[in-house]
Amino acid sequence: MKSLVLERKDELSLRDFPIEREEEVLGPRDVRIKLHTVGICGSDVHYYTHGRIGPFVVEAPMILGHEASGTVMEVGSEVTTLSVGDRVCMEPGIPDPNSKATRLGMYNVDPAVRFWATPPVHGILRPTCVHPEAFTFKLPENVRFDEAAMVEPLAVGVHAATKARVKPGDIAVIMGAGPIGLVTALAALAAGCARVYVSDLAEKKLQIAESLSPAITGVDARKESIAQRVRADTDGWGCDIVFEATGSPKAAAQVFEPLAPGGCVVMIGGQPDPISYDAGAAMIREARVENIFRYAHVFPRCVAMLASGAIDVKPLITRKFSFEESVHAFETAAAAPPADVKMQIELPQ
Amino acid sequence: MKSLVLERKDELSLRDFPIEREEEVLGPRDVRIKLHTVGICGSDVHYYTHGRIGPFVVEAPMILGHEASGTVMEVGSEVTTLSVGDRVCMEPGIPDPNSKATRLGMYNVDPAVRFWATPPVHGILRPTCVHPEAFTFKLPENVRFDEAAMVEPLAVGVHAATKARVKPGDIAVIMGAGPIGLVTALAALAAGCARVYVSDLAEKKLQIAESLSPAITGVDARKESIAQRVRADTDGWGCDIVFEATGSPKAAAQVFEPLAPGGCVVMIGGQPDPISYDAGAAMIREARVENIFRYAHVFPRCVAMLASGAIDVKPLITRKFSFEESVHAFETAAAAPPADVKMQIELPQ
Amino acid sequence: MKSLVLERKDELSLRDFPIEREEEVLGPRDVRIKLHTVGICGSDVHYYTHGRIGPFVVEAPMILGHEASGTVMEVGSEVTTLSVGDRVCMEPGIPDPNSKATRLGMYNVDPAVRFWATPPVHGILRPTCVHPEAFTFKLPENVRFDEAAMVEPLAVGVHAATKARVKPGDIAVIMGAGPIGLVTALAALAAGCARVYVSDLAEKKLQIAESLSPAITGVDARKESIAQRVRADTDGWGCDIVFEATGSPKAAAQVFEPLAPGGCVVMIGGQPDPISYDAGAAMIREARVENIFRYAHVFPRCVAMLASGAIDVKPLITRKFSFEESVHAFETAAAAPPADVKMQIELPQ
Amino acid sequence: MKSLVLERKDELSLRDFPIEREEEVLGPRDVRIKLHTVGICGSDVHYYTHGRIGPFVVEAPMILGHEASGTVMEVGSEVTTLSVGDRVCMEPGIPDPNSKATRLGMYNVDPAVRFWATPPVHGILRPTCVHPEAFTFKLPENVRFDEAAMVEPLAVGVHAATKARVKPGDIAVIMGAGPIGLVTALAALAAGCARVYVSDLAEKKLQIAESLSPAITGVDARKESIAQRVRADTDGWGCDIVFEATGSPKAAAQVFEPLAPGGCVVMIGGQPDPISYDAGAAMIREARVENIFRYAHVFPRCVAMLASGAIDVKPLITRKFSFEESVHAFETAAAAPPADVKMQIELPQ
Repeated sequence: MKSLVLERKDELSLRDFPIEREEEVLGPRDVRIKLHTVGICGSDVHYYTHGRIGPFVVEAPMILGHEASGTVMEVGSEVTTLSVGDRVCMEPGIPDPNSKATRLGMYNVDPAVRFWATPPVHGILRPTCVHPEAFTFKLPENVRFDEAAMVEPLAVGVHAATKARVKPGDIAVIMGAGPIGLVTALAALAAGCARVYVSDLAEKKLQIAESLSPAITGVDARKESIAQRVRADTDGWGCDIVFEATGSPKAAAQVFEPLAPGGCVVMIGGQPDPISYDAGAAMIREARVENIFRYAHVFPRCVAMLASGAIDVKPLITRKFSFEESVHAFETAAAAPPADVKMQIELPQ
Repeated sequence: MKSLVLERKDELSLRDFPIEREEEVLGPRDVRIKLHTVGICGSDVHYYTHGRIGPFVVEAPMILGHEASGTVMEVGSEVTTLSVGDRVCMEPGIPDPNSKATRLGMYNVDPAVRFWATPPVHGILRPTCVHPEAFTFKLPENVRFDEAAMVEPLAVGVHAATKARVKPGDIAVIMGAGPIGLVTALAALAAGCARVYVSDLAEKKLQIAESLSPAITGVDARKESIAQRVRADTDGWGCDIVFEATGSPKAAAQVFEPLAPGGCVVMIGGQPDPISYDAGAAMIREARVENIFRYAHVFPRCVAMLASGAIDVKPLITRKFSFEESVHAFETAAAAPPADVKMQIELPQ
Repeated sequence: MKSLVLERKDELSLRDFPIEREEEVLGPRDVRIKLHTVGICGSDVHYYTHGRIGPFVVEAPMILGHEASGTVMEVGSEVTTLSVGDRVCMEPGIPDPNSKATRLGMYNVDPAVRFWATPPVHGILRPTCVHPEAFTFKLPENVRFDEAAMVEPLAVGVHAATKARVKPGDIAVIMGAGPIGLVTALAALAAGCARVYVSDLAEKKLQIAESLSPAITGVDARKESIAQRVRADTDGWGCDIVFEATGSPKAAAQVFEPLAPGGCVVMIGGQPDPISYDAGAAMIREARVENIFRYAHVFPRCVAMLASGAIDVKPLITRKFSFEESVHAFETAAAAPPADVKMQIELPQ
Repeated sequence: MKSLVLERKDELSLRDFPIEREEEVLGPRDVRIKLHTVGICGSDVHYYTHGRIGPFVVEAPMILGHEASGTVMEVGSEVTTLSVGDRVCMEPGIPDPNSKATRLGMYNVDPAVRFWATPPVHGILRPTCVHPEAFTFKLPENVRFDEAAMVEPLAVGVHAATKARVKPGDIAVIMGAGPIGLVTALAALAAGCARVYVSDLAEKKLQIAESLSPAITGVDARKESIAQRVRADTDGWGCDIVFEATGSPKAAAQVFEPLAPGGCVVMIGGQPDPISYDAGAAMIREARVENIFRYAHVFPRCVAMLASGAIDVKPLITRKFSFEESVHAFETAAAAPPADVKMQIELPQ
């Protein structure tokens, strides 16, 4: 199958690639899917430009891509909820159903999870794949393939908002207006926030953020302190939730400043090294800090919110490429200016 | 002061009424408010037509009205968050700040609460009132007086959605499309529900419900089982939350039928007598049942959601009367056809 | 294998009984266990005396027993946490690991659960059985076989206390001093309650309850109102939690009376018919009601609490029979006077 | 009144000290208390030896002491729950009942809180004091004055265990075997933990810890990694809760290492400077971090647990001094060897 292969750091090719037989075998509770749209994630680009993410090192050629939608081509003998021809999106991590974490309902923290495009597991920038029914979700008619390929990043934001336990009328701060910051802003509003402040250093990104909803206020962190702004707008009380979505140690060191007493901080952005934690500021507020890792149980919720209009991700899809252009697409993404939020690749149908 | 006085069951007059001096005295942490708009609540009408609600009996002439907005005329010496001229809405219940329930953060269940238009406490269908700063909330410029007078009923829905702990993408059923059912539907969507089913016996009310959002589906309970409908739409799983907002014993007896495993039922509608509870159905789902009483801490949240557009209550305000017409307004409300959701009275400014 | 077989209502025999081959096959993640001690549960007795429990009808001869401990005889090829010779106790319900409820962490409400001694699934009053590693728990040296066979009923109490979300220093009421009421009392104390009131109609049972801990107070419901007693002892505030463990409709109708504002009711006792629910009493307290079904994820927690001394179930084991006496044991249990809490059967080793 | 006065850093005197008149006036909801026993807290000693704690600086002579029990001498006109002669303990922080934090139920994070022996507020190492009824708690007959003076430090542990939301059978690690670590160990066990590991560098302190309960295991952090020990004892899974009670930056940097997936860290120990936070370790576990500040609503719970025997603090009271010896008592405490957990001063009666 022709696939987008990361041969090694800095080298991509679109070429025939033999998939191990076990990945091709359709189990009784699996479906075979023809891929339609695959989004380019920052982690895909990071493997391309750095060859690793933390302990995960690209040591052999690996197919990229994990944000995907497609069409069911074949179903296993025990599949009951999906049929050939169904339009679907797929959750890229497959846990061990018998692990302790999975049984407790936290399959995302199961160390045995196999996650697409995370070495040595291949991604799905290829014509077809086999996937478990339990992690494949049927799309309603009014959800398009490109929106469906956005469910994966959106799921991070929705999981973050779920863990925050947003209450109706909360005020939130999102640190970072990159793709994850923006889906978190949409998720926070859908989850009940009355107002969301998004802070970033890039004016263009803030404009995009503000264009998504009148309830989003951009704050240029170079010109204004987010903590001072929030206090000024809340009679000095502060915000209910801070979502850290920059992955910047400097931003992460300031998460408690805008926070109200009893508030919650959600750490989303990955941090390769230990960060600075202002324990005193956390204590006098009795802050709760939630640390999240990917998502669990939220894909069908995201699909339902796209279908009902509770969340609209279409404005985040800013550029599309054909599968033939996919090496060029990654080169473009690696040099992405702030104007582009999400680039996607469409496979031939 | 000219006030709308319920002289006794079935007898209203708009007449001068002497308020006890203590209600007129402005304490250091009080404000004096010129009333602007007052909504007519079902409980006001019930006192008018029945002379009592449960243990609360009208034994002396009482001023009606508790859903109110207005303008600050005077502030006490220690008031810091409000100024003369501020447009405001008011929470009608005043608890004892030193009671155990209040100190625990549950002032709504403090037995010592004094609540407007609940015998023997007077309501605010009168030109002015004195109220504590802590229960008076400033309106942003873009929130109108009539919307602000809707905060009181909206607060019931928002409190219900808060207690339900809605998670993003939940599916909810609201039993009852009366005013409380409708504000609960709006609150449930704002709180993160992807879809809300509203069931009622009156087709006109269902039309109003569906007009509020494309994410609301009306179900005519005379023609269709809400439980069967929800199961059909969810692969047999059921809904995450059921809000009981009818106050009908028959409806309340069926709250568990549409509910998914691990789901939550919120009892909103008052029930004068014990109801039937299907403990077996509750157990096999491990249902959680929350029983709510009015609201606590949600007024400023409601104001923020009206201001940001997260909730729009304007379509629920279907008819307005002048203060001079207020006896007629109550006669109309007592005979209200389903087309009217909320009637309001505007006081002379 | 010689097994205790319920041939039909009112007829037991201890005889050779052929187990279907599939129950004998050791899968890669299974263990084979030699049974040691099996407790007699009220449900076992109920099948014996009534031939059914709700929808579950004994339509063919069925082996009884589901409260069990034993020794591992053989392990499947992928088993990692257990070895031959390990002393263990076993959780009697096996869910479908791929069901939606199980994946969400609520395997106890998975409709596909197969539960020992629930028609048509056989129990384990027989020499050996095959069971999944995931539901078999190793015993520390200081936990005896008879204590381990108490983990199953104890798990109900611990699950109830977990769902109640006991806070340190809570005051609880347990309605019912039968075996489940008593394990719930122990679990509630271990979970943080400062004081537990147990109410019952049988003085002997109350004596047993009080003998378990100085923090347990028995209340004879024929002589004293539990609600009045609790109010008298708490300056009128009430208790934080009520556990309903009688299964009596009359008791269940009164669960809100002793409850404090913001308190929690846990419904444990099964109810074949709808019960009376005082919605008004529930609302003015904003009561939370948790309805529980068996247990999930608590067996290893129970074992740990027995090992550490946090809970001592030994006083509840009041009588033991040999396997040869097991028909007699059931006849005795069916006529059990209140002095016996838990009877157990020891199999030949 | 003769009082123990911290004149300035390093200088204590036991001398007559005039209290401002407002502190002497008995309001309608106040009681006047004759002090009986006062514990010496690390913060009292720190003011003595350093003259400040963070932003709180001793700039004028201040009476020390805030862990206290005594007897009611006089009651205000509106007091209903206390009478002259009642034996009581007192919560040392008095919030503004009208502040936003207090109304939300979080009075401990109200910035307006006035806390005994925190400059410029005087403590209670003096014969009598006036205190609000709402923060004065009657002692049952079987709770002694010295135990009651332990309620203040115990409240920190109980608040920590409450915030952790201990579930029955949890396994916890307490970092630090000082007085706060030890009360946290007792609170964690009372709250449902099956086993508590306490780590420290001082062998003597670990011996004291282990003497409190067979369910407490001391780990000498100089000889053994607490993380490795916990993993070894839990099949590699880890512990459910880590309580950080050292205030040491080095210990605080390692809080996630022993923690299981989905576990909780509670930060108790104060940290003057930002600490190192291993965000990656926190994320892969989806750790929840609770940061606590003193306590709220737990004093009556602590009294109830002392009365029922759920917690026994008597072994922690290792030395007593008379009021006349109180300067010497502080000198001793400032040089305290690990063998002393809590020293107390008894006032003349």
